[in-house]
Amino acid sequence: MSDSNTLAVIAGAGKFPVMVIEGAKQHGLRVVVLGLKEIADASLADIADEFYWVAPLRLNEWLKRLHQVGAKTAVMAGYVQKKSMFRRFGILSFLPDRLFLKLWFKDIADKRNDTVLTAVANLLSQHGVELQDVTRYCPSVLAPSGVLGAERINANLRRDIQFAWSIAKEMGRLDIGQSIAVKNGEIIAVEAIEGTDMMIERAGQLCKNGGWTLLKVAKPNQDMRFDVPTIGINTIENLHRHGAGALIVEAGKTVIVDMQDVIALANQYRIVFAAIDHASSINDIPIS
Amino acid sequence: MSDSNTLAVIAGAGKFPVMVIEGAKQHGLRVVVLGLKEIADASLADIADEFYWVAPLRLNEWLKRLHQVGAKTAVMAGYVQKKSMFRRFGILSFLPDRLFLKLWFKDIADKRNDTVLTAVANLLSQHGVELQDVTRYCPSVLAPSGVLGAERINANLRRDIQFAWSIAKEMGRLDIGQSIAVKNGEIIAVEAIEGTDMMIERAGQLCKNGGWTLLKVAKPNQDMRFDVPTIGINTIENLHRHGAGALIVEAGKTVIVDMQDVIALANQYRIVFAAIDHASSINDIPIS
Repeated sequence: MSDSNTLAVIAGAGKFPVMVIEGAKQHGLRVVVLGLKEIADASLADIADEFYWVAPLRLNEWLKRLHQVGAKTAVMAGYVQKKSMFRRFGILSFLPDRLFLKLWFKDIADKRNDTVLTAVANLLSQHGVELQDVTRYCPSVLAPSGVLGAERINANLRRDIQFAWSIAKEMGRLDIGQSIAVKNGEIIAVEAIEGTDMMIERAGQLCKNGGWTLLKVAKPNQDMRFDVPTIGINTIENLHRHGAGALIVEAGKTVIVDMQDVIALANQYRIVFAAIDHASSINDIPIS
Repeated sequence: MSDSNTLAVIAGAGKFPVMVIEGAKQHGLRVVVLGLKEIADASLADIADEFYWVAPLRLNEWLKRLHQVGAKTAVMAGYVQKKSMFRRFGILSFLPDRLFLKLWFKDIADKRNDTVLTAVANLLSQHGVELQDVTRYCPSVLAPSGVLGAERINANLRRDIQFAWSIAKEMGRLDIGQSIAVKNGEIIAVEAIEGTDMMIERAGQLCKNGGWTLLKVAKPNQDMRFDVPTIGINTIENLHRHGAGALIVEAGKTVIVDMQDVIALANQYRIVFAAIDHASSINDIPIS
């Protein structure tokens, strides 16, 4: 029953898969969810047309299931905490299959996100499944351009954004991480595999007088099939808890889960929240 | 009594100032130490020809003292934990003078190390005091090229060094930090203002199966007057405590405080310890 009307959603953690599934269903697609075991939320089964668990690193299991359900297109949505792969016994504790081990140890030159995920996408493609832009069926989740919250951008913050934007982009180009913390012309923290939340916590500890800014941006050549920058209300709660004063994301390339709630919470905490297209576009935004 | 035979050592924390003072004295210089209050070690007074405390951010006090002792040349040695400037009340808690505040808030475009320290060096120069290469009188503290310890470099580590070297250099070019942690083609952690020791701790937490590598390198255009990468036995203790398997530094541009002790300790903990000139020079080192 292979048909072009079926979309497979390979789902990681968080609520973003819900939005992808709902968007695809509104487009009239039959949505089959492959939930990554111990990572995806079991409640996805309630909204999917069909739901199956797959082991995160058993690519052969993915392929068998994709073929069985007749999916020729797929999207990957939700996050996988990469740092868990560096726990004791490393990736072997995830019981990878031979297909994954060959990819991990033979096919790829390094283990950065883009390298690994591009190899996975290529492998799926070789087996007849095309990985698609994850926002294809839910474009409204992407941050629109401009000041999104009630707080304005002042001259000092504008200078920090102009200073830090290109550095954040370089981190993306090198595929190190998506976020940096900046205050008054100083880079306080840079994200690597620890993830944005742990970096926010560190920035708060390093900058006890608060009022710092989180910049989270896409890579210069962001592959919208995977690893798209994503924020949600947890991000705002975490920023507030650790004294941040502003959150700046990249317009059109950042997923905002529950956008209205995120904006309301940022306003409640008086955190500046804006999305810009590039560093100089900040000049188009009136400052307070 | 201004004379070309006097060297002022502006001293921060750690033991490196001792080596600078001893080296300068062996060159027959009169060594006047300006110890940064609450940062430098008081025992420097025992080996200096003259010793004075100066407040860290009172540049006018520095200049008055430099002129009074007749110093036309100076070096800056030892570290200052920059993260302390981000504590509550920020730099104001250090009671900066007007000269420093003008530099900090008016003269410089951002607060990265090179920007700040170059501005300080230029200010001293305008007042007749030339800041010199900090290793000028103690060149033997610089890491020689090659495998320095007893542990050999294997093929896997060589690949990681080749992969991570250019990324570490980029971090230096952007003046973000000197160190990164890598394992099996993945960048585990990147240093910003938290300093190398805190980054080592984080890498250990993120990589519980251990065996990761610390790369600490100079900037592409390292100014040898300040901010020269420095390691010592504390670095090795810290690496061991957090499960690192290798320490790779840049030959000729890294200060090793107590080099023989550092090598002995790395050997005791079976940590690979090597200094290389550039990423491809690793090919000249025989692997085990």
